[in-house]
Parts: sequence; C-alpha cells; structure tokens
Amino acid sequence: MPVTGYYLPPRGQLQRGLTSPDIARARRSKQGLLWVDIVAPDAADGQFLEETFGFHHLTVEDCLSRDIHPPKIDAFDDYLFIVVHGVNHLKESDIVETAELALYIGCNFVVTSHHDPLYSINEIRRLVEADGRPMARGADFLAHAVIDALVDNVMPTIDRMADVAEEIEIEVISRPQPNILDGILKLKRSALKVHRVMAPQREVLNRLSRKEFPLIKPEAQIFYRDVYDHVVRIEDLNQTLLDRADNSMATYLSSVANRQNETMKVLSVVATIFLPLTLVAGIYGMNFDYMPELHWKWGYFTVLGAIGLAILVLMWRFWASGWFAHGRRKMTWIKPFRVNARRLRGHPDAEKPSPQPPEAI
Amino acid sequence: MPVTGYYLPPRGQLQRGLTSPDIARARRSKQGLLWVDIVAPDAADGQFLEETFGFHHLTVEDCLSRDIHPPKIDAFDDYLFIVVHGVNHLKESDIVETAELALYIGCNFVVTSHHDPLYSINEIRRLVEADGRPMARGADFLAHAVIDALVDNVMPTIDRMADVAEEIEIEVISRPQPNILDGILKLKRSALKVHRVMAPQREVLNRLSRKEFPLIKPEAQIFYRDVYDHVVRIEDLNQTLLDRADNSMATYLSSVANRQNETMKVLSVVATIFLPLTLVAGIYGMNFDYMPELHWKWGYFTVLGAIGLAILVLMWRFWASGWFAHGRRKMTWIKPFRVNARRLRGHPDAEKPSPQPPEAI
Amino acid sequence: MPVTGYYLPPRGQLQRGLTSPDIARARRSKQGLLWVDIVAPDAADGQFLEETFGFHHLTVEDCLSRDIHPPKIDAFDDYLFIVVHGVNHLKESDIVETAELALYIGCNFVVTSHHDPLYSINEIRRLVEADGRPMARGADFLAHAVIDALVDNVMPTIDRMADVAEEIEIEVISRPQPNILDGILKLKRSALKVHRVMAPQREVLNRLSRKEFPLIKPEAQIFYRDVYDHVVRIEDLNQTLLDRADNSMATYLSSVANRQNETMKVLSVVATIFLPLTLVAGIYGMNFDYMPELHWKWGYFTVLGAIGLAILVLMWRFWASGWFAHGRRKMTWIKPFRVNARRLRGHPDAEKPSPQPPEAI
Amino acid sequence: MPVTGYYLPPRGQLQRGLTSPDIARARRSKQGLLWVDIVAPDAADGQFLEETFGFHHLTVEDCLSRDIHPPKIDAFDDYLFIVVHGVNHLKESDIVETAELALYIGCNFVVTSHHDPLYSINEIRRLVEADGRPMARGADFLAHAVIDALVDNVMPTIDRMADVAEEIEIEVISRPQPNILDGILKLKRSALKVHRVMAPQREVLNRLSRKEFPLIKPEAQIFYRDVYDHVVRIEDLNQTLLDRADNSMATYLSSVANRQNETMKVLSVVATIFLPLTLVAGIYGMNFDYMPELHWKWGYFTVLGAIGLAILVLMWRFWASGWFAHGRRKMTWIKPFRVNARRLRGHPDAEKPSPQPPEAI
Amino acid sequence: MPVTGYYLPPRGQLQRGLTSPDIARARRSKQGLLWVDIVAPDAADGQFLEETFGFHHLTVEDCLSRDIHPPKIDAFDDYLFIVVHGVNHLKESDIVETAELALYIGCNFVVTSHHDPLYSINEIRRLVEADGRPMARGADFLAHAVIDALVDNVMPTIDRMADVAEEIEIEVISRPQPNILDGILKLKRSALKVHRVMAPQREVLNRLSRKEFPLIKPEAQIFYRDVYDHVVRIEDLNQTLLDRADNSMATYLSSVANRQNETMKVLSVVATIFLPLTLVAGIYGMNFDYMPELHWKWGYFTVLGAIGLAILVLMWRFWASGWFAHGRRKMTWIKPFRVNARRLRGHPDAEKPSPQPPEAI
Repeated sequence: MPVTGYYLPPRGQLQRGLTSPDIARARRSKQGLLWVDIVAPDAADGQFLEETFGFHHLTVEDCLSRDIHPPKIDAFDDYLFIVVHGVNHLKESDIVETAELALYIGCNFVVTSHHDPLYSINEIRRLVEADGRPMARGADFLAHAVIDALVDNVMPTIDRMADVAEEIEIEVISRPQPNILDGILKLKRSALKVHRVMAPQREVLNRLSRKEFPLIKPEAQIFYRDVYDHVVRIEDLNQTLLDRADNSMATYLSSVANRQNETMKVLSVVATIFLPLTLVAGIYGMNFDYMPELHWKWGYFTVLGAIGLAILVLMWRFWASGWFAHGRRKMTWIKPFRVNARRLRGHPDAEKPSPQPPEAI
Repeated sequence: MPVTGYYLPPRGQLQRGLTSPDIARARRSKQGLLWVDIVAPDAADGQFLEETFGFHHLTVEDCLSRDIHPPKIDAFDDYLFIVVHGVNHLKESDIVETAELALYIGCNFVVTSHHDPLYSINEIRRLVEADGRPMARGADFLAHAVIDALVDNVMPTIDRMADVAEEIEIEVISRPQPNILDGILKLKRSALKVHRVMAPQREVLNRLSRKEFPLIKPEAQIFYRDVYDHVVRIEDLNQTLLDRADNSMATYLSSVANRQNETMKVLSVVATIFLPLTLVAGIYGMNFDYMPELHWKWGYFTVLGAIGLAILVLMWRFWASGWFAHGRRKMTWIKPFRVNARRLRGHPDAEKPSPQPPEAI
Repeated sequence: MPVTGYYLPPRGQLQRGLTSPDIARARRSKQGLLWVDIVAPDAADGQFLEETFGFHHLTVEDCLSRDIHPPKIDAFDDYLFIVVHGVNHLKESDIVETAELALYIGCNFVVTSHHDPLYSINEIRRLVEADGRPMARGADFLAHAVIDALVDNVMPTIDRMADVAEEIEIEVISRPQPNILDGILKLKRSALKVHRVMAPQREVLNRLSRKEFPLIKPEAQIFYRDVYDHVVRIEDLNQTLLDRADNSMATYLSSVANRQNETMKVLSVVATIFLPLTLVAGIYGMNFDYMPELHWKWGYFTVLGAIGLAILVLMWRFWASGWFAHGRRKMTWIKPFRVNARRLRGHPDAEKPSPQPPEAI
Repeated sequence: MPVTGYYLPPRGQLQRGLTSPDIARARRSKQGLLWVDIVAPDAADGQFLEETFGFHHLTVEDCLSRDIHPPKIDAFDDYLFIVVHGVNHLKESDIVETAELALYIGCNFVVTSHHDPLYSINEIRRLVEADGRPMARGADFLAHAVIDALVDNVMPTIDRMADVAEEIEIEVISRPQPNILDGILKLKRSALKVHRVMAPQREVLNRLSRKEFPLIKPEAQIFYRDVYDHVVRIEDLNQTLLDRADNSMATYLSSVANRQNETMKVLSVVATIFLPLTLVAGIYGMNFDYMPELHWKWGYFTVLGAIGLAILVLMWRFWASGWFAHGRRKMTWIKPFRVNARRLRGHPDAEKPSPQPPEAI
Repeated sequence: MPVTGYYLPPRGQLQRGLTSPDIARARRSKQGLLWVDIVAPDAADGQFLEETFGFHHLTVEDCLSRDIHPPKIDAFDDYLFIVVHGVNHLKESDIVETAELALYIGCNFVVTSHHDPLYSINEIRRLVEADGRPMARGADFLAHAVIDALVDNVMPTIDRMADVAEEIEIEVISRPQPNILDGILKLKRSALKVHRVMAPQREVLNRLSRKEFPLIKPEAQIFYRDVYDHVVRIEDLNQTLLDRADNSMATYLSSVANRQNETMKVLSVVATIFLPLTLVAGIYGMNFDYMPELHWKWGYFTVLGAIGLAILVLMWRFWASGWFAHGRRKMTWIKPFRVNARRLRGHPDAEKPSPQPPEAI
C-alpha cells in the first residue's frame, strides 16, 4: 500500500513525497532519476505500476504475490525486472527466513517492491533524504546501492549462525544431549536455505556485472561484481557452516555410541564381579548334611576374605586393562598443524637456499 | 476415446462439439484456432490424428501408450510435440502419482491428449466454453494456458507434502515409532518422483521461453518464462521437502539410539544396585557354624538398614551424576537466529553510521 | 563363427544364405541393402570383415575381443562403428548381465556382431525372412530396428527388478532377516550396472538422432530419437529402483536397531522385576538369630503376597508407560497424499473462481 | 641416469646404443625417428634434454622431480609434453601405487622419461630391437605404442583388485571379522587412487584423439581413440570395484549389528529363564517359621518339577517365536533376475507377435 | 602500514627503500619495474594506492578489509587485480588457516598487499635485494615468482596433514579412543578449507596461463601453467587426505561397535554361566523337609563338582565357538595387490608373446 516516491530532476533539487501524478510526470519526462518504493503492494499499486510504467502484467503479478520467487532477471526492451533475496530480520524463527525484493531498473527510474519493511531499503532512503547521493549517478548505481545493502545485511545472520555453530560444537563435546540434534538440524536447514537463495543470486549478479544489459553502464558493472564477490563469500562461509553442522552431527552420534558403551561396561563389570560371588555364597547356603567347610572355625572368615579379595582383584584388573580409559580423555596427542618451518620458502631458518627463480630462456 | 473439438474461426463465433469432418475442415482452413482434446485415446483416435493432422507416427504412439514418457519437445517442420507432466489427483496412493499430457502445437491448432481426465484441462475447457477467451490469442497462448494450469495444480500436492512433513517432524520428536520411518520414506519417494518429473520439465519450459521455436510468438515467450519460474519454485520447495525428510530420518534414528541408551541405563542401574546387595544377603544366608554377626542382637537390623541405605545412596548417586538427565529435555539453550540488530545497515540503532555509498570516480 | 547374410537388391527379391563371395559382390555393388550378422566372431571372421568391407583394424578387434566395451560411436569416412548394450537374457545370474552388440552402418550395408545369440537380432531376422520389411528403407532404418529391439528387450528386466524390489519391500517390513541385505545389495548392483551401460548409450543415441552423421537420413533421425526416449525412460525407472533399494536398506537397518531395542527391553524388564525380589527372598533367607518377622505367623504369606503384587504392579507399569508400544504398530496416521481438492484449478468444487487467463497487453 | 637411444634413419637400418652426440645429430637431421628413453633422470640428463632438444625448462623439471604430476598435455610450438600414469608393478604395497611416464613427441623424435623401470617400456624396446616395427610409422605411432602398453598394463591390477573384492565378499558373509574392514578400506583407497589418475588421463587421450594437435596424424588419432576406450573401460570396472567395496562395507556393518543382536538375545533368554526361577528357589530358602509347603512331602519334587518344566516351556517358546530364526539363514527366496522370457521380443515363445517395425511415412 | 618499494629502472641499478614520492615518480615513468609491498594496509595506504596508481576504489577496499575474499581476477584496462590464497603459517591452530594476498599487475609495476607477513613474500624480497633477479623479466614474471612461492608454501602443510592422517590411522587401529574423532574431524575440516581455497585458485591460474590477459606475456604463461599444475597436485593430495579422514572415521566407528560387541559378549558369557548355577545352589538351599539329596553323603561334593564341571565346559564351548575370535586379529589373509606378473606386457616371464603393435593399414 504505502508508495514512496523520490525524483531527482536533471539539474535540480530532490523532490520527495511524490503523488501518483508526480510520479507519472517524472516517468514521462525520461530525464533525471525517479525512485518509487512500494511496501506490501496491493492490486491498486499493481494497476498503477502497469499503467504508469507499462510494466509487463506477469512481473507485476510477481510483485503482488506473497509466494517465494527464486532470484532471477527478466530483461524487457526498456527495463529490467530483477528479484533478489536477503534475510528477513523481522521474523524471529528457529530457521533463517528470507526476504524478497523485486526491482525494476529503467533508463530514468528504479522501482522497488517488497512485502515486509527492509532495513536495507530504510538505509538507502535515509541516505537519499539526507543528501540525495545514492541517486546522483543514475538508475544502475541506485539499484546497486539497494542490492548491496540487502546482500550486506545477510552477513550478520551468517555471523550469528557461526556463533550458534560454535555453541553447538562446545555443547556437543561437553554435554551431548538429545536436544542438541535439534539444534544441529536447524542450523543445517538454515544454511541450506541460505544456500538455495544465494546460488541463483550469484548467477543474477554475475549477469549484471557482465556486458549483457545496456542499462547497466560499464562503470557500474564493477560495483555489481563487488556484490557478486560478497555473495561468493557468503556462500563460502555458509558452506563451512554446513560442514560444521555435519561434523557436530558425527560427533554427537559417536558420543551417543560411546555413552552406550560406558553403560554396557558398567553393567558387564558389575555382573562379572558379583554373579560368580553370589554363586559362592549360594553354595555355602545349601543345606547338605555333610559340608565339612561349614564346621571349620575359620571357614566363614576365609570365604568372606576371598570374596572381598576377588572384588578388589577384579576391579583392579578391569581398571588396568583400560576398560575405563575413555573417561580420562587425554586430548594431547593431536598437535595443531604446525608445519616444519624450515621447509618453508622464505623462512629465516629454511633448510636449504631457496630454489632459483626461473631464468630467461 | 472421447474427442472434443472447439473451433474459433478468424472473425466468428466459437464452434463446439465438432465432429471429425468439422475438425478436418478447420485444420485444412489454416485459419482461426482449433483445439482438439482427447481423453484416453485409442488406436482409432491415433489413426484420426495421423490422417487429419499428419502427425508423425511415433508421436501418436507416445500418445497412445500408457508408459511414462519423460517431459520433452520434438520439433517438426510445422508443429511441436510436447510432453509435460502434472500430478494425478485422481489416484489416491501413498506416493504421489504423476499425470502425463501430450500436446501438439501448430499454426492454427492445439491438440491435447491424456489418459486420465485432468482438472487443469477441465478448467480451460470451462473457460473456453464460457467466453472463448483462452483461445482468443492463438495456439501458443492456448497451449500456455493448458500447461500453466497443469503446473499450477502441482502446488496443492507440494503443500500437502509439506503438511505431511510437518506431521512427521512433530511425531518424530514426540512419539518416535517404527512406522514413522515408513512415512518418511514415502515422503522422500514422493519428493524424488516430483523432482524426476520437474527437472526435465524445467528444461522443456526453458526452451519454450527462448526464441528457439517460431511457433511461439515473442509476446507468448514471457508467459512460458512465467511457467518456468513456477517450475523452479516447485523444484525449490520440493528440495526443501527432501531435506526435511532426511532430517526427520536423522532425528528418528538418533531417537532410537537414545531410547536404547535409556533402556540400557535402567538395566545397568538395577543390576548395579541389586547384584551386590543380593551377595550380601547371600553371605548371611550361608550355613557356617561360626558366624559371629548372626548372633549379635542388632545384626539383622544393621544389615537391613545398610541395604536400605545402600539403595538410597546409589540411586541418589546415579541421579546426581546425570545418568537420567536426558529425560528432562530442557530445550532452551538454542536461541532462534536473532542477529545483533545494531549490526544491520539501516537499522534505527545501527552501531555506526552506515558506510558511504560508492562515489563517482 | 556363424555368418548370416541377407541382400536386398535395389529392385529385386531378398536373397538369403549368402556366401562370402556373395557378400563381397553385394558390398561392391554399392546398391541395395546388405545385412551381415555374425555370432561369436573369430579371427577368420575378423579378417573377412577387414578385407571385404575395409573396416578399420581396431574396430574389428573390438568385435572379436570378449572384453566389455562401453557404448560409443566411431565415425569413419564411409561407415559408422557403433557399440550398444542390452541385457544378456541367456545368463541366469543374481546380478543383471549386459550383452554387447557391435554395428557397422554403411551406405548400403549393416554388419552386426555379437558374442552371444540375441533375441532382438532373432526377431529382426525373422521379420526380414518373413517379408524383408525391416530392410526396405535402407541401412539407417535397419540399424534402428536392431537397436530398438535391443533397447526394448531391456524393459522386461527392469520390470523383473521392480518385482524383486517389491518383494524386498514387503519382506523387509514383515520379516526382516539378514539375508535380505544380500538381496538389496544385488538389486542395487544390478541397477548400477544398468545405469552404467545406459548413461553412455543415451549419449550415443542422442548423437544418432541429431544431424551429426550424414549416413542417418533426416527421416530416420526421429526414430533414433524415439529409442533415445526409451533409454531416458529406462534410466528413469532404473533410478527409481536405486532409490527403492536405498529405502529398503534404511528400513532394514532401522528394523535391526528396533529389534535390538526390543531384546534389550525384555532383558531390562526381567532384571528390574526379579533382581529386587530376589534380594527380598535372600534377606529372609539370612540366618540371623533375631529376625522378628520370621516368627510372625503371617510373615511368609505377607512376603509372598508382596512379591506377587510387586510383579503385577511392575509389569503393569512397564506396559502402561509404553515400553512395549512398538509391537502394536498402528500405521494409520500417515494418510495418503490426498490434496484438498477445492484448491485445484478446474475441480468442480474449487474454492474460488479460477484466475483469469492472461489478457492481451 | 641411464639414457638409451634408438634412431631409425629415413631409409636405413635401426641404430642402437646411441651416444649423446649421436642423439644430438639425429635430432638436428629432422629426419627419420629418434627415440630416447631415460630412466631415473638426474640433473645432467635434464641439462642434456634442454640443450639437445630445446625443451622448456619447466617440463624438464617435471621429468626430474619425483613428485606426482597429474596427467596433462602441454603443447609447445614444435613438440608436445605429455604426462601419463600407469600402475607401478615394482612396489608391493597394500594400496595400488601409480607410475608416471613423461613423454615428449616431436616431428622426428619421442623422448620418454620415468623414475622406475616400466614393463611397458621394456616391451616396446624389445619390439624395437627385434625388428624396429613400433618405430616404422613415425613419432605419433611410437608414442601410441608406449602409452597403449602402459594403459594395458593397468588391467592386471584391476583384475587383481576384482579378485580381492571377491575374496572380501565371500569372507564378509562367511566370517565377518574386524580386520576385513581394513581390507575393504584398502580396496576402496586403491580404487579411488586409480580413479584419480584415470579421470584426467581420459581427458588427455580424448584431446590426443581429436584434431587438436597437428603432430598427431589423422590416421594415428583412431589409435589414440582406442586407448581412450581402454581408459573408459578401466574407469568403468574401477567404479564397479568401488561399488563392491561399499556394498561389502554395508554387509560387514550389518553383520556386526546382527551379531550384537544375537549376543543380546542369548543374554535376554538366559536372564528371562533363570532370574524368575532363582526367585522361586530363594523364596523356599526363606527361614519363616510357618511355611506350610516346606512340610508337604512332595513339595520339593513339585518345585523341582515346576522349575524344570518352566525351563523347557520358556526355551520352547523362545524357539517358536523365531528369536533364533536368524541363525538358520535360508537364502532361497531371492531368485536370480530371470525375466519372463515370453515378454522378450524375438523369443521363440514370445506372447504376442512382435510389433511391426516402423513403416514408411 | 609498512610500505616497501623497489624500483628497477630500464637500464640501471635496483633502488630500494623508496619513499612515496619515489614510488609515484617511478609509476609515472611507465618504464622499468616497480614493486610495492604493503603489509597490513590502513586507510592512508589505501588512499595512497588510489591516488598514485589510480586503482579502482573497490579493489582497494578489498585490500583493506580483513574479510576473506575468495580467489579471483578483476581485469581493468591497464592493470589486473588478483586475489590468491596460501596457508597462514603464523597462526598455530588446530585447523589450517589460510592467508590472503592481493596483487595488482600493471605494465611496469606490481603491488602486493597482505595483512600478515608472508614467508613467500620475504623470500622474493630477499632474492630481489640480493641481485634483483626476480624483477629482471618484467611485472608478469615478478608476479609469478610471488604466486609460485605462495603456492609452494602450501605443500609443507599438506605434508603435515598427511603426517597427522598417518598418526590417526595408526591410532585408530591400535587405540581407538573418543578423542580421535576430534582429530579426524579437524583433519577433515582442514582439508575442506584447503579445497575451498584451491578450487577457485585453480580457475584463477588457468585464466592467467591462457591468452586471456595481454599483460601476461606468452613466455610467462607457461610459468603460470606450472603453478596451475602445482595447484592441481595440491588438490589431488588434499582429496586423498579427505578420503583417508573418511576411512579413519569408518574404522573408528566400526571399532566402537566391535568394542561394544566384546563388552556384550563378556556380559552374556558371565550371565550364561553363573545364572543357571546360582539357581542350582538356590535349589539346594531351599528348606523343604524332604529333600533326599541333602542327606546323601556325597551330595555336596557331587553338586560342587557338577558346578565346577559346568563352568569349565561352558567356558570351553564359548571359546571353541569363536565368540572370542575377534580378539586374535589375524590380519594375514588380505595380501597386497600383487598382480600376476606373467600377465604384464613387457614382463620377462610374460605368458604369451606380446601382441603385435598396430600395423599400417
């Protein structure tokens, strides 16, 4: 519903708070730069866009529908329709939510449309209102500013996911409990969600940074390339998060197996020690008439001593044979990856004179 | 068998209920738009198609055979033969069933052929009968309307699968039972089936939305692009379903392992407490002549008290050492992915002034 | 060794049972269509092929060697050398065996060579002997007939594998036994074998159905495309078999884990009930002089009753707490994927009027 | 160090045992064919190559260094530098070792360099010394002969690995022991090693068999294609070995789980039978004054009989309920993949007349 | 902050310790070769680069920011901006850390910028200071020297990781303890980190070694190709490390399962032997009035003997039936992959005369 318009005439002052007729006039002038930002567009807004800008009906439908549209570029004769995604920071959920931004880029206008308010749009609007700078260099630079802010705002979420991954890694070693699995899977789903949005976005930005679209001036392409590099970095970090989630899963499952082992060992030790001794006590509790040991004076104490001794010996044996070694957790033997520095070229103590660089042929 | 024909002459009224000769005449006129829809075609229908439209024998065979044909386009000199898939909503089965639709697109005709009635065809037929609109803009637009409806009707199935995935996720945490595995695997197979049909379909629609086929007018291509986008979205959602099925599987298997752990712990605790005490009782049940404790007045009560005390102490120890902590399920520590808002560009409380946008060089 | 030759002169009768000189003469005439089929070729046959047809030595070696040669096309100036694979139906083994067919296609000849008799070759020979029809349209159509029959004969094997997969799926739920794993792995290896043969075959047929080789006339290409479609379908079904094998494996392994759980539960229940009671009996079997309960008249019956009551209470508790719930197997909650029909476009009870088709712009 | 040179002048006799000056002269003549084979080259050999043949310094470094160099082609103006890999048959290790061969191909020379003696080079040298034949057709054919022999000598290793895979498969079913895992993992690592060498080698041979390099004459390309086919076959067989290793792993792990199940069952059965009976015996060992059964004449025998009967009944129940069924291993139900022959086209008892071949249109 | 400059005028002496004005002058001369190396650049350095060299603002931002930038090339009109990665040998961490190097290559200058000191840069600086050689052949060769040293210095880390992998493999067989899992996962994460950096680096070097950039002279391209080959080798070795980590994981998990099996066996054996005998002792401890055996003189000794005999017989049975066989670990049956040498072409005892090489056709 809320439509906000800014217009920077070729050699004039920034105009704000444009009404629909203002927008239509600015559009028709084919001069200066017009930015229209629409939050939560409704059917009327859609009709306004189609009439004023002549946008294709299908692209307007994409703006209106709340379905998720994968990142894409649709190139028309005199404008580009772009869908990009960022992170939705308004929803608080266990799994990262993405936010969609639809952009039209024309020769003298940029139209942005989104369903939820976006911090990145807010920032550009504040900058525009401050001194109009993001609009000073044309539609392609304004669109870049918007997309750049959107992609930049993904990084804090990646950082937060890295923190969660770290928490999980510590937890999974110190206190592996079933609910950690839930945390791992949520982290994994979030990372997969980010991946699924970023992979096509990378392609979109790659196309924008090549010479494919005349609307993107050569001097703007390098800026799109920069956003492309950010997306590549985000994908990279995200992939690391996926690996860490997988590793935490492996550690957790292994710790479950080990704990079961510990439980079984306790059981086995107790049974191994006490079942035979119970048999001994049972034997001397039999009621046979003729059992000579029973009448020996020291019989009882001998048996008692033997039982005590057997318990001590068996326990010592179990201990010595390492059955309980797993509890000790000596983690010293895996040294960090410290290479032999003398093998490094350029190291002050390098073993041999560095090889000669290739000579002229 | 049932062949339905519609004919919209260049500047006339829609004709319905065409007979075979009508169809042949309309076809020969090379004007207007003819739509022939065949349900469950038999050999006679095949012969009719070959004779009237001159379709290649092999394409007609594809229409007649009830085998599954992967989505494809065969381009002939003056017509396209397309196979696309939707979901078969008539069969109620545990695993999603797909429905196949064969289409011929020519300069002035569209022929659709399918084995089961299709809701999407019904809809277009109703619209045609209402005011003929889907036929108003030519064969490529009519074919688009049919394919679009077919692809749109896949979404409710994806939604239903998402509901099932949700049911499974709740069930797998609250009551993990062996039959849930069956549900997970059925969900997975359904998602794989949808994937296997949608992946080549995406290629088919991509080709239709490019300039590859002269029969698809440029102004129609963007509509095919729209269907392409729908297929991409369906694939995306479907991929998420596969991930969720895999995660549910991991959760289920882990819960099986944990439950086994719990069982083992109960056993170990019982054995650890009672086996040693049974030995004690066994010792005082021995029949040695000389066992001084037996004659001590408070002997019995001392032993009884010691046994009771040992039970209490051991139980308390097991409890305190966290052996039963897994039952408590405190799930609080994994916080939702709430980023530090002050790190977001454009957030009202952003930590630092937003970085300057790129300046002119 | 056995060389069979057929020759159809340009405007004459089919000649059968050609001798080597007949074959050489027909070859030299560069007219009509000559078909030579060689079963289990030996060195003499190889020399005959090299001399009469001038085939490259290396292709003849491929015909003679019993090694497996992956599907491929070698294009020479005036002939194509093609290797395709089908299923060997003569060997009865646990894992599907493939059969190799080498084909030469020239302007007026087709030479087929294989080590084992092939049903598909038999069929084409019978048809040729009946009325010569498969040879009526030239070398490319004859080669198509042969390859088509070979590929078609793969389907019964796929069907048989699907039956085995079904047997396994039933067995794995009703009676999961260790030997089922062997069945699953054999199914998987068979499917992998078919996959490894069909994937390059798909590429071979794709190339034959494009305009790459002048020896394949345009009107024959569509027929090769048809075989290509069959191969795609076979690969698709085969992939489904692989998925089903993987799912059966998951079900089997999970059932092993569950059965172990059941075993452990029986053990835990027995121990939890009887170990404490044995302690009670042991206590009253002690020989202390002063144990007042022993002299109470109803002592014995009280203890006996308490023991009986404890057994009943504990069993009831275990039952009630769901430890044995897994045996009940209520499988009702996973409903089939029935979508909400009112959400389907074209459904008679559709919730809302179908959206309007795109209008002219 | 050991440099061996052969020179076949344009129209003369093969010259052997060339000295360095001979080699330099032959090289400069730009006629005939010169083959220089260097085993374990040292710095002096490297300098000789650079001076005499003018090879690029970096390629010579590749020859000298004992590091592993992945297969590759470096194309220079007047020579090709090729690295290919075979199997090192001299090292006896648990994991297959690869051997590297560096080749230079020029207009009138081939230089081969390798660190360990190679059987394949030996063979070509013997053939050259016998009648000079491998050198009769030029540098490209000589290089082919060398590469062909190298690749052919990989097959016996693949065969040996197949034997090991078979041993493992038998062992893993009949006597699954922990050390079999080691064997499986070694097989897998060997197969992965072969794969990692063969995959880029395939690309090298593909490039050599196309028209990319003028030094490879068209009539030699088909021979390189033949080696390419061998590499494809090796990769295929190798892939099968990987699958078999994975399957053996699955079988082994499943057998471990099953054996554990068996162990648990024994334990559960023993506990279920004897714990309750021990309670019974314990009850009649209590010392209550008033226990009427004790004074009944047949009390003891009744209890003894009841205990014996209980043991028999429980054992029979466990047996009947199939707890021990897994030991029986009836492996009959998975029938080999025998298709219904009547469904095969061309089978003598085929169900229906074979479908007609496509007719002319 | 620390900026070091070297300048080699066209026909003069190397100048060191350049000041900012010196650098600006050398840059403007467009002659000779200027190398500027910046460690830990700050905003002032960035401004200096932009002003003196006219580098694009975005590339300078990449130099300044401490974020990780994936390897890439940005080509501008008169310079290339390259990001490559090596290993950070200064940080001692459990997981390999990468170090980033940003390079500008122009017609007469190379600018390198990095956040941490790099051994590889040190080496080239020492060589330059010694005799200026790395700068003798132009900017492309200087840049090659730097990148080559950086990539070469990755190898010691790979070697160290291989040592760790070996330690883990030995440990996992001899003393599988839970903390080994941590070591395996760290090795895996390190290898994944190296992979993620090397894969795009391979692409960067591939582009530099083709004719894509005029700034890289043809005679320098082969040197970049050489670095490319090193990267391929590093990736190959790294992949092997990943496989080894996976295998160690499989071995570890299997050893956990086996150890659990051993524990269960001990438990089962103890229970199987002693529970029935305890019942026997319990029976003869019952207090029935009429138990004839009790009064038989040899009763006690008979029972005692029977119990002893039963223990011996059962233990022998368990031993004989191989329940404890897994402890013996006979690892002899997997022989190394020794092929049948007589099957090798060129082997002195080869079974048959080697096949003839292909003859002329």
